[in-house]
Amino acid sequence: MDTVPLPGRRRSDRARQVADLLRREIVRGRFGAGHLPPEAALAREFGASRNTVRDALAVLRAEGLVERCPGVGTTVAAEKYPHGLHRLLGLAETLYEHGEVTNEVRAMSVIDAPPPVAARLGLPDGERVVYVERLRRLNGLPLSLDLTYLARDVGEPLFDADLVRNDVFVLLERVAGQPLGPAELTVEAVNADPHTAAVLGVPRGAALLLVERCAHLADGRPVDLEYIRFRGDRLTMSGRLRRDPGEPQEDTWP
Amino acid sequence: MDTVPLPGRRRSDRARQVADLLRREIVRGRFGAGHLPPEAALAREFGASRNTVRDALAVLRAEGLVERCPGVGTTVAAEKYPHGLHRLLGLAETLYEHGEVTNEVRAMSVIDAPPPVAARLGLPDGERVVYVERLRRLNGLPLSLDLTYLARDVGEPLFDADLVRNDVFVLLERVAGQPLGPAELTVEAVNADPHTAAVLGVPRGAALLLVERCAHLADGRPVDLEYIRFRGDRLTMSGRLRRDPGEPQEDTWP
Repeated sequence: MDTVPLPGRRRSDRARQVADLLRREIVRGRFGAGHLPPEAALAREFGASRNTVRDALAVLRAEGLVERCPGVGTTVAAEKYPHGLHRLLGLAETLYEHGEVTNEVRAMSVIDAPPPVAARLGLPDGERVVYVERLRRLNGLPLSLDLTYLARDVGEPLFDADLVRNDVFVLLERVAGQPLGPAELTVEAVNADPHTAAVLGVPRGAALLLVERCAHLADGRPVDLEYIRFRGDRLTMSGRLRRDPGEPQEDTWP
Repeated sequence: MDTVPLPGRRRSDRARQVADLLRREIVRGRFGAGHLPPEAALAREFGASRNTVRDALAVLRAEGLVERCPGVGTTVAAEKYPHGLHRLLGLAETLYEHGEVTNEVRAMSVIDAPPPVAARLGLPDGERVVYVERLRRLNGLPLSLDLTYLARDVGEPLFDADLVRNDVFVLLERVAGQPLGPAELTVEAVNADPHTAAVLGVPRGAALLLVERCAHLADGRPVDLEYIRFRGDRLTMSGRLRRDPGEPQEDTWP
Protein backbone atom coordinates (compact mmCIF):
# COMPACT_ATOMS: atom_id res chain seq x y z
CA MET A 1 0.00 0.00 0.00
CA ASP A 2 1.22 3.46 -0.84
CA THR A 3 0.52 4.98 2.51
CA VAL A 4 3.22 7.19 3.96
CA PRO A 5 2.10 7.86 7.50
CA LEU A 6 4.38 10.56 8.78
CA PRO A 7 5.56 10.65 12.36
CA GLY A 8 3.89 13.08 14.72
CA ARG A 9 0.38 12.64 13.34
CA ARG A 10 -1.75 13.50 16.32
CA ARG A 11 -5.36 13.06 17.20
CA SER A 12 -5.86 16.83 16.96
CA ASP A 13 -4.66 16.67 13.34
CA ARG A 14 -7.20 13.98 12.55
CA ALA A 15 -9.88 15.88 14.47
CA ARG A 16 -9.27 18.94 12.29
CA GLN A 17 -9.80 16.82 9.18
CA VAL A 18 -13.08 15.47 10.48
CA ALA A 19 -14.18 18.91 11.69
CA ASP A 20 -13.68 20.44 8.24
CA LEU A 21 -15.73 17.77 6.49
CA LEU A 22 -18.43 17.82 9.14
CA ARG A 23 -18.62 21.64 9.09
CA ARG A 24 -19.30 21.49 5.38
CA GLU A 25 -22.06 18.91 5.80
CA ILE A 26 -23.69 21.06 8.50
CA VAL A 27 -23.45 24.25 6.43
CA ARG A 28 -24.89 22.46 3.41
CA GLY A 29 -27.89 21.50 5.53
CA ARG A 30 -27.43 17.75 5.62
CA PHE A 31 -28.73 17.64 9.18
CA GLY A 32 -31.13 20.57 8.85
CA ALA A 33 -31.51 22.29 12.19
CA GLY A 34 -31.64 18.93 13.92
CA HIS A 35 -29.46 16.24 15.43
CA LEU A 36 -26.15 14.98 14.24
CA PRO A 37 -25.74 11.22 14.13
CA PRO A 38 -24.30 9.63 17.28
CA GLU A 39 -20.54 9.76 17.70
CA ALA A 40 -20.19 6.07 16.92
CA ALA A 41 -21.94 6.52 13.57
CA LEU A 42 -19.83 9.54 12.70
CA ALA A 43 -16.71 7.59 13.68
CA ARG A 44 -17.68 4.82 11.23
CA GLU A 45 -18.52 7.31 8.48
CA PHE A 46 -15.22 9.16 8.77
CA GLY A 47 -13.06 6.15 9.53
CA ALA A 48 -11.98 7.82 12.77
CA SER A 49 -11.98 6.89 16.43
CA ARG A 50 -14.75 8.11 18.70
CA ASN A 51 -12.22 10.23 20.54
CA THR A 52 -11.26 11.93 17.29
CA VAL A 53 -14.92 12.59 16.48
CA ARG A 54 -15.43 13.99 19.97
CA ASP A 55 -12.50 16.37 19.45
CA ALA A 56 -13.87 17.40 16.06
CA LEU A 57 -17.25 18.18 17.62
CA ALA A 58 -15.47 20.26 20.27
CA VAL A 59 -13.88 22.34 17.49
CA LEU A 60 -17.30 22.96 15.91
CA ARG A 61 -18.82 23.73 19.31
CA ALA A 62 -16.18 26.38 19.90
CA GLU A 63 -17.17 27.90 16.56
CA GLY A 64 -20.79 28.12 17.71
CA LEU A 65 -21.95 25.75 14.98
CA VAL A 66 -23.16 22.87 17.16
CA GLU A 67 -24.30 22.38 20.72
CA ARG A 68 -24.05 19.41 22.98
CA CYS A 69 -27.30 18.66 24.77
CA PRO A 70 -26.92 16.19 27.64
CA GLY A 71 -29.03 13.09 27.01
CA VAL A 72 -29.85 14.24 23.47
CA GLY A 73 -26.50 14.39 21.69
CA THR A 74 -25.15 17.02 19.38
CA THR A 75 -27.47 19.40 17.56
CA VAL A 76 -26.99 22.08 14.95
CA ALA A 77 -26.88 25.43 16.78
CA ALA A 78 -26.88 27.92 13.95
CA GLU A 79 -27.53 28.25 10.28
CA LYS A 80 -24.72 29.73 8.19
CA TYR A 81 -25.96 31.75 5.26
CA PRO A 82 -24.23 31.84 1.88
CA HIS A 83 -23.31 35.26 0.52
CA GLY A 84 -22.73 35.07 -3.22
CA LEU A 85 -19.24 35.96 -4.39
CA HIS A 86 -20.05 35.37 -8.05
CA ARG A 87 -21.49 38.84 -8.63
CA LEU A 88 -21.99 42.13 -6.86
CA LEU A 89 -25.00 41.68 -4.62
CA GLY A 90 -26.56 43.45 -1.67
CA LEU A 91 -27.31 41.44 1.44
CA ALA A 92 -31.08 41.26 0.93
CA GLU A 93 -30.54 40.31 -2.69
CA THR A 94 -28.16 37.47 -1.93
CA LEU A 95 -30.14 36.10 1.04
CA TYR A 96 -33.66 36.52 -0.37
CA GLU A 97 -34.32 32.80 -0.08
CA HIS A 98 -33.33 32.78 3.58
CA GLY A 99 -35.59 35.41 5.06
CA GLU A 100 -36.04 39.10 5.64
CA VAL A 101 -33.12 41.49 5.96
CA THR A 102 -33.79 44.60 8.05
CA ASN A 103 -31.36 47.41 8.73
CA GLU A 104 -30.98 49.51 11.84
CA VAL A 105 -29.48 52.84 10.85
CA ARG A 106 -27.02 53.62 13.67
CA ALA A 107 -25.69 56.80 12.09
CA MET A 108 -26.26 58.81 8.95
CA SER A 109 -24.67 62.15 8.27
CA VAL A 110 -22.72 64.27 5.83
CA ILE A 111 -19.06 64.34 6.87
CA ASP A 112 -15.74 65.59 5.56
CA ALA A 113 -14.28 62.67 3.66
CA PRO A 114 -11.22 61.33 5.46
CA PRO A 115 -8.33 61.42 2.96
CA PRO A 116 -8.31 57.63 2.32
CA VAL A 117 -12.04 57.76 1.54
CA ALA A 118 -11.64 60.75 -0.79
CA ALA A 119 -8.82 58.92 -2.59
CA ARG A 120 -10.85 55.73 -3.07
CA LEU A 121 -13.91 57.63 -4.30
CA GLY A 122 -11.82 59.82 -6.61
CA LEU A 123 -12.88 63.01 -4.83
CA PRO A 124 -10.80 66.11 -4.12
CA ASP A 125 -9.46 66.42 -0.59
CA GLY A 126 -11.95 67.99 1.77
CA GLU A 127 -15.00 66.95 -0.26
CA ARG A 128 -17.98 65.96 1.81
CA VAL A 129 -19.52 62.48 1.65
CA VAL A 130 -22.53 60.75 3.14
CA TYR A 131 -21.71 58.30 5.93
CA VAL A 132 -24.20 55.56 6.79
CA GLU A 133 -23.73 52.97 9.51
CA ARG A 134 -26.12 50.07 9.66
CA LEU A 135 -26.58 46.99 11.81
CA ARG A 136 -28.10 44.44 9.47
CA ARG A 137 -30.25 41.56 10.65
CA LEU A 138 -31.61 38.49 8.95
CA ASN A 139 -34.88 37.35 10.48
CA GLY A 140 -34.10 39.57 13.45
CA LEU A 141 -30.64 38.09 14.06
CA PRO A 142 -27.60 40.40 13.81
CA LEU A 143 -25.57 39.41 10.76
CA SER A 144 -23.35 42.35 9.85
CA LEU A 145 -22.25 45.85 10.76
CA ASP A 146 -21.75 48.02 7.67
CA LEU A 147 -19.88 51.33 7.49
CA THR A 148 -20.66 53.03 4.19
CA TYR A 149 -19.24 56.15 2.52
CA LEU A 150 -21.20 57.47 -0.46
CA ALA A 151 -20.47 60.17 -3.01
CA ARG A 152 -22.68 63.08 -1.98
CA ASP A 153 -24.79 63.36 -5.15
CA VAL A 154 -25.99 59.77 -4.91
CA GLY A 155 -25.86 59.59 -1.11
CA GLU A 156 -27.93 62.60 -0.09
CA PRO A 157 -31.16 61.37 -1.72
CA LEU A 158 -30.93 58.33 0.59
CA PHE A 159 -31.87 60.56 3.56
CA ASP A 160 -35.42 60.29 2.22
CA ALA A 161 -35.26 56.60 1.31
CA ASP A 162 -36.34 53.52 3.24
CA LEU A 163 -32.96 52.27 4.37
CA VAL A 164 -34.54 49.89 6.85
CA ARG A 165 -35.91 47.57 4.21
CA ASN A 166 -33.71 48.19 1.18
CA ASP A 167 -30.15 47.39 0.15
CA VAL A 168 -28.13 50.54 -0.53
CA PHE A 169 -27.22 49.07 -3.94
CA VAL A 170 -30.83 49.04 -5.09
CA LEU A 171 -31.42 52.58 -3.84
CA LEU A 172 -28.22 53.84 -5.48
CA GLU A 173 -29.23 52.44 -8.84
CA ARG A 174 -32.60 54.14 -8.54
CA VAL A 175 -31.03 57.48 -7.62
CA ALA A 176 -28.28 57.29 -10.23
CA GLY A 177 -30.58 56.11 -13.00
CA GLN A 178 -28.01 53.53 -14.02
CA PRO A 179 -26.92 50.12 -12.78
CA LEU A 180 -23.86 49.55 -10.69
CA GLY A 181 -20.85 48.23 -12.55
CA PRO A 182 -17.75 46.60 -11.09
CA ALA A 183 -16.55 46.53 -7.51
CA GLU A 184 -13.21 45.73 -5.93
CA LEU A 185 -13.38 43.74 -2.75
CA THR A 186 -10.94 42.58 -0.12
CA VAL A 187 -11.82 39.90 2.40
CA GLU A 188 -10.04 39.48 5.73
CA ALA A 189 -10.60 37.60 8.97
CA VAL A 190 -10.39 39.66 12.16
CA ASN A 191 -11.25 39.10 15.80
CA ALA A 192 -14.17 41.16 17.06
CA ASP A 193 -13.09 44.03 19.30
CA PRO A 194 -15.18 44.26 22.49
CA HIS A 195 -17.53 46.98 21.26
CA THR A 196 -18.16 45.37 17.87
CA ALA A 197 -18.75 42.07 19.63
CA ALA A 198 -21.44 43.69 21.78
CA VAL A 199 -23.14 45.25 18.76
CA LEU A 200 -23.14 41.99 16.77
CA GLY A 201 -24.05 39.84 19.77
CA VAL A 202 -20.98 37.60 19.64
CA PRO A 203 -18.30 36.79 22.21
CA ARG A 204 -15.30 39.12 22.36
CA GLY A 205 -12.69 37.99 19.92
CA ALA A 206 -15.15 36.04 17.76
CA ALA A 207 -13.89 35.63 14.19
CA LEU A 208 -15.48 38.05 11.73
CA LEU A 209 -15.26 38.31 7.95
CA LEU A 210 -14.22 41.88 7.23
CA VAL A 211 -15.02 42.94 3.68
CA GLU A 212 -13.92 46.17 2.09
CA ARG A 213 -15.88 46.79 -1.07
CA CYS A 214 -15.71 49.75 -3.42
CA ALA A 215 -18.56 49.77 -5.92
CA HIS A 216 -18.60 51.80 -9.13
CA LEU A 217 -21.52 52.91 -11.24
CA ALA A 218 -21.77 51.34 -14.68
CA ASP A 219 -20.11 54.48 -16.05
CA GLY A 220 -17.03 53.67 -13.97
CA ARG A 221 -17.32 56.28 -11.23
CA PRO A 222 -16.64 54.90 -7.71
CA VAL A 223 -19.52 55.97 -5.48
CA ASP A 224 -19.82 53.50 -2.60
CA LEU A 225 -17.03 52.45 -0.23
CA GLU A 226 -18.05 49.97 2.45
CA TYR A 227 -16.45 48.25 5.42
CA ILE A 228 -18.58 45.27 6.35
CA ARG A 229 -18.13 43.00 9.36
CA PHE A 230 -19.99 39.73 8.94
CA ARG A 231 -20.45 37.36 11.86
CA GLY A 232 -18.19 34.43 11.10
CA ASP A 233 -20.59 32.01 12.75
CA ARG A 234 -23.48 33.07 10.53
CA LEU A 235 -22.13 33.71 7.07
CA THR A 236 -19.99 32.17 4.37
CA MET A 237 -19.00 33.69 1.03
CA SER A 238 -19.12 31.40 -1.98
CA GLY A 239 -18.06 31.86 -5.54
CA ARG A 240 -16.43 30.32 -8.51
CA LEU A 241 -12.98 30.94 -9.92
CA ARG A 242 -11.48 29.97 -13.20
CA ARG A 243 -7.90 29.04 -13.87
CA ASP A 244 -8.00 31.04 -17.10
CA PRO A 245 -10.51 33.86 -16.72
CA GLY A 246 -10.55 34.24 -20.50
CA GLU A 247 -10.31 38.00 -20.46
CA PRO A 248 -7.74 40.54 -19.40
CA GLN A 249 -7.95 40.95 -15.64
CA GLU A 250 -7.30 44.35 -14.28
CA ASP A 251 -5.42 44.78 -11.11
CA THR A 252 -7.85 44.37 -8.28
CA TRP A 253 -6.55 47.32 -6.37
CA PRO A 254 -6.27 50.83 -7.75
CA MET B 1 -26.29 71.13 7.04
CA ASP B 2 -27.75 67.74 6.31
CA THR B 3 -26.11 65.97 9.17
CA VAL B 4 -28.25 63.59 11.15
CA PRO B 5 -26.13 62.69 14.13
CA LEU B 6 -27.94 59.86 15.82
CA PRO B 7 -27.97 59.51 19.58
CA GLY B 8 -25.70 56.95 21.17
CA ARG B 9 -22.75 57.56 18.85
CA ARG B 10 -19.86 56.46 20.99
CA ARG B 11 -16.13 56.89 20.79
CA SER B 12 -15.78 53.17 20.09
CA ASP B 13 -17.97 53.63 17.00
CA ARG B 14 -15.73 56.40 15.73
CA ALA B 15 -12.63 54.38 16.63
CA ARG B 16 -13.91 51.51 14.45
CA GLN B 17 -14.27 53.91 11.53
CA VAL B 18 -10.73 55.17 11.93
CA ALA B 19 -9.38 51.64 12.45
CA ASP B 20 -10.89 50.43 9.18
CA LEU B 21 -9.39 53.25 7.15
CA LEU B 22 -6.05 53.01 8.87
CA ARG B 23 -5.94 49.23 8.44
CA ARG B 24 -6.36 49.72 4.72
CA GLU B 25 -3.56 52.28 4.55
CA ILE B 26 -1.25 49.92 6.44
CA VAL B 27 -2.14 46.92 4.25
CA ARG B 28 -1.60 48.99 1.13
CA GLY B 29 1.88 49.78 2.36
CA ARG B 30 1.55 53.52 2.90
CA PHE B 31 3.82 53.32 5.92
CA GLY B 32 5.98 50.47 4.63
CA ALA B 33 7.30 48.46 7.55
CA GLY B 34 7.99 51.66 9.46
CA HIS B 35 6.37 54.16 11.77
CA LEU B 36 2.85 55.48 11.72
CA PRO B 37 2.49 59.23 12.08
CA PRO B 38 2.06 60.52 15.66
CA GLU B 39 -1.42 60.31 17.13
CA ALA B 40 -1.93 64.06 16.80
CA ALA B 41 -1.24 63.92 13.06
CA LEU B 42 -3.56 60.95 12.59
CA ALA B 43 -6.23 62.77 14.60
CA ARG B 44 -5.97 65.76 12.24
CA GLU B 45 -6.03 63.53 9.15
CA PHE B 46 -9.11 61.61 10.22
CA GLY B 47 -10.91 64.52 11.84
CA ALA B 48 -11.04 62.56 15.09
CA SER B 49 -9.94 63.16 18.65
CA ARG B 50 -6.64 61.79 19.89
CA ASN B 51 -8.54 59.47 22.21
CA THR B 52 -10.42 58.06 19.24
CA VAL B 53 -7.18 57.52 17.35
CA ARG B 54 -5.69 55.82 20.41
CA ASP B 55 -8.67 53.47 20.55
CA ALA B 56 -8.37 52.76 16.83
CA LEU B 57 -4.70 51.89 17.27
CA ALA B 58 -5.65 49.56 20.13
CA VAL B 59 -8.01 47.72 17.76
CA LEU B 60 -5.22 47.28 15.21
CA ARG B 61 -2.78 46.25 17.91
CA ALA B 62 -5.17 43.51 19.02
CA GLU B 63 -5.25 42.31 15.40
CA GLY B 64 -1.45 42.03 15.42
CA LEU B 65 -1.10 44.64 12.69
CA VAL B 66 0.74 47.33 14.65
CA GLU B 67 2.88 47.51 17.77
CA ARG B 68 3.36 50.29 20.25
CA CYS B 69 6.99 50.88 21.08
CA PRO B 70 7.51 53.09 24.14
CA GLY B 71 9.39 56.23 23.20
CA VAL B 72 9.12 55.42 19.48
CA GLY B 73 5.41 55.43 18.75
CA THR B 74 3.38 52.98 16.71
CA THR B 75 5.04 50.80 14.09
CA VAL B 76 3.77 48.35 11.51
CA ALA B 77 4.16 44.86 13.00
CA ALA B 78 3.30 42.65 10.08
CA GLU B 79 2.84 42.66 6.37
CA LYS B 80 -0.48 41.33 5.09
CA TYR B 81 -0.19 39.60 1.74
CA PRO B 82 -2.84 39.78 -0.96
CA HIS B 83 -4.16 36.49 -2.30
CA GLY B 84 -5.81 36.97 -5.68
CA LEU B 85 -9.51 36.14 -5.83
CA HIS B 86 -9.80 37.05 -9.49
CA ARG B 87 -8.63 33.70 -10.79
CA LEU B 88 -7.67 30.27 -9.55
CA LEU B 89 -4.12 30.55 -8.24
CA GLY B 90 -1.81 28.55 -6.05
CA LEU B 91 -0.12 30.29 -3.14
CA ALA B 92 3.33 30.56 -4.72
CA GLU B 93 1.75 31.83 -7.93
CA THR B 94 -0.27 34.54 -6.25
CA LEU B 95 2.52 35.67 -3.89
CA TYR B 96 5.48 35.42 -6.30
CA GLU B 97 6.24 39.11 -5.87
CA HIS B 98 6.35 38.80 -2.10
CA GLY B 99 8.92 36.08 -1.58
CA GLU B 100 9.46 32.36 -1.51
CA VAL B 101 6.75 29.92 -0.56
CA THR B 102 7.96 26.65 0.97
CA ASN B 103 5.80 23.77 2.08
CA GLU B 104 6.32 21.40 4.98
CA VAL B 105 4.54 18.14 4.18
CA ARG B 106 3.02 17.08 7.51
CA ALA B 107 1.24 14.03 6.11
CA MET B 108 0.84 12.32 2.78
CA SER B 109 -0.92 9.03 2.30
CA VAL B 110 -3.53 7.12 0.37
CA ILE B 111 -6.72 6.89 2.42
CA ASP B 112 -10.30 5.72 2.03
CA ALA B 113 -12.21 8.79 0.91
CA PRO B 114 -14.59 9.92 3.66
CA PRO B 115 -18.09 9.99 2.10
CA PRO B 116 -18.24 13.82 1.82
CA VAL B 117 -14.91 13.80 -0.02
CA ALA B 118 -16.01 11.04 -2.38
CA ALA B 119 -19.21 12.96 -3.10
CA ARG B 120 -17.37 16.22 -3.87
CA LEU B 121 -14.84 14.49 -6.11
CA GLY B 122 -17.53 12.48 -7.89
CA LEU B 123 -16.04 9.16 -6.78
CA PRO B 124 -17.84 5.98 -5.77
CA ASP B 125 -18.09 5.32 -2.05
CA GLY B 126 -15.04 3.59 -0.66
CA GLU B 127 -12.70 4.85 -3.40
CA ARG B 128 -9.25 5.73 -2.22
CA VAL B 129 -7.79 9.22 -2.51
CA VAL B 130 -4.45 10.87 -1.82
CA TYR B 131 -4.40 13.03 1.29
CA VAL B 132 -1.72 15.72 1.62
CA GLU B 133 -1.35 18.06 4.57
CA ARG B 134 1.03 20.98 4.28
CA LEU B 135 2.13 23.84 6.45
CA ARG B 136 2.94 26.61 4.00
CA ARG B 137 5.38 29.39 4.75
CA LEU B 138 6.23 32.62 3.01
CA ASN B 139 9.83 33.67 3.60
CA GLY B 140 9.89 31.19 6.47
CA LEU B 141 6.79 32.56 8.19
CA PRO B 142 3.78 30.24 8.62
CA LEU B 143 0.96 31.46 6.41
CA SER B 144 -1.46 28.59 5.93
CA LEU B 145 -2.29 25.01 6.82
CA ASP B 146 -3.72 23.12 3.84
CA LEU B 147 -5.60 19.81 3.93
CA THR B 148 -5.84 18.42 0.40
CA TYR B 149 -7.72 15.45 -1.04
CA LEU B 150 -6.73 14.42 -4.56
CA ALA B 151 -8.21 11.94 -7.03
CA ARG B 152 -5.84 8.99 -6.95
CA ASP B 153 -4.76 9.01 -10.60
CA VAL B 154 -3.49 12.58 -10.41
CA GLY B 155 -2.49 12.45 -6.74
CA GLU B 156 -0.26 9.36 -6.64
CA PRO B 157 2.37 10.78 -9.04
CA LEU B 158 2.86 13.58 -6.50
CA PHE B 159 4.59 11.13 -4.15
CA ASP B 160 7.60 11.55 -6.45
CA ALA B 161 7.23 15.32 -6.94
CA ASP B 162 8.87 18.22 -5.13
CA LEU B 163 5.99 19.32 -2.95
CA VAL B 164 8.25 21.48 -0.83
CA ARG B 165 8.81 24.03 -3.57
CA ASN B 166 5.80 23.68 -5.85
CA ASP B 167 2.11 24.50 -5.73
CA VAL B 168 -0.07 21.40 -6.06
CA PHE B 169 -1.91 23.16 -8.91
CA VAL B 170 1.21 23.34 -11.05
CA LEU B 171 2.09 19.71 -10.35
CA LEU B 172 -1.46 18.55 -11.09
CA GLU B 173 -1.47 20.25 -14.46
CA ARG B 174 1.83 18.58 -15.31
CA VAL B 175 0.54 15.16 -14.28
CA ALA B 176 -2.85 15.53 -15.94
CA GLY B 177 -1.44 17.00 -19.13
CA GLN B 178 -4.17 19.61 -19.13
CA PRO B 179 -4.80 22.88 -17.32
CA LEU B 180 -7.10 23.23 -14.37
CA GLY B 181 -10.51 24.67 -15.15
CA PRO B 182 -13.02 26.14 -12.72
CA ALA B 183 -13.11 25.86 -8.95
CA GLU B 184 -15.83 26.48 -6.39
CA LEU B 185 -14.70 28.17 -3.25
CA THR B 186 -16.25 29.06 0.07
CA VAL B 187 -14.64 31.54 2.45
CA GLU B 188 -15.36 31.64 6.18
CA ALA B 189 -13.85 33.24 9.26
CA VAL B 190 -13.14 30.89 12.17
CA ASN B 191 -11.25 31.14 15.44
CA ALA B 192 -8.11 29.02 15.59
CA ASP B 193 -8.51 25.95 17.78
CA PRO B 194 -5.58 25.49 20.19
CA HIS B 195 -3.74 22.92 18.11
CA THR B 196 -4.11 24.81 14.82
CA ALA B 197 -2.98 27.96 16.61
CA ALA B 198 0.19 26.18 17.74
CA VAL B 199 0.92 24.92 14.22
CA LEU B 200 0.39 28.34 12.62
CA GLY B 201 2.15 30.22 15.41
CA VAL B 202 -0.80 32.43 16.36
CA PRO B 203 -2.59 32.98 19.68
CA ARG B 204 -5.44 30.61 20.50
CA GLY B 205 -8.65 31.91 19.03
CA ALA B 206 -6.91 34.08 16.42
CA ALA B 207 -9.16 34.77 13.44
CA LEU B 208 -8.39 32.60 10.41
CA LEU B 209 -9.70 32.67 6.87
CA LEU B 210 -10.95 29.17 6.17
CA VAL B 211 -11.24 28.44 2.46
CA GLU B 212 -12.81 25.34 0.98
CA ARG B 213 -11.85 25.02 -2.64
CA CYS B 214 -12.75 22.29 -5.08
CA ALA B 215 -10.77 22.51 -8.31
CA HIS B 216 -11.69 20.78 -11.55
CA LEU B 217 -9.54 19.89 -14.51
CA ALA B 218 -10.30 21.76 -17.72
CA ASP B 219 -12.33 18.72 -18.83
CA GLY B 220 -14.66 19.32 -15.87
CA ARG B 221 -13.61 16.50 -13.57
CA PRO B 222 -13.19 17.55 -9.90
CA VAL B 223 -9.79 16.32 -8.72
CA ASP B 224 -8.64 18.54 -5.85
CA LEU B 225 -10.58 19.33 -2.69
CA GLU B 226 -8.79 21.58 -0.21
CA TYR B 227 -9.43 23.01 3.22
CA ILE B 228 -7.08 25.93 3.75
CA ARG B 229 -6.60 27.92 6.95
CA PHE B 230 -4.91 31.24 6.30
CA ARG B 231 -3.58 33.35 9.14
CA GLY B 232 -5.93 36.31 9.36
CA ASP B 233 -3.11 38.61 10.43
CA ARG B 234 -1.02 37.77 7.38
CA LEU B 235 -3.33 37.42 4.42
CA THR B 236 -6.17 39.16 2.61
CA MET B 237 -8.11 37.94 -0.41
CA SER B 238 -8.83 40.49 -3.11
CA GLY B 239 -10.90 40.33 -6.22
CA ARG B 240 -13.31 42.09 -8.46
CA LEU B 241 -17.03 41.56 -8.83
CA ARG B 242 -19.39 42.79 -11.45
CA ARG B 243 -23.00 43.71 -10.96
CA ASP B 244 -23.90 42.01 -14.21
CA PRO B 245 -21.42 39.20 -14.83
CA GLY B 246 -22.47 39.17 -18.46
CA GLU B 247 -22.71 35.41 -18.72
CA PRO B 248 -24.89 32.74 -17.21
CA GLN B 249 -23.59 32.01 -13.74
CA GLU B 250 -23.88 28.48 -12.56
CA ASP B 251 -24.76 27.74 -9.03
CA THR B 252 -21.65 27.98 -6.96
CA TRP B 253 -22.39 24.83 -5.05
CA PRO B 254 -23.14 21.45 -6.60
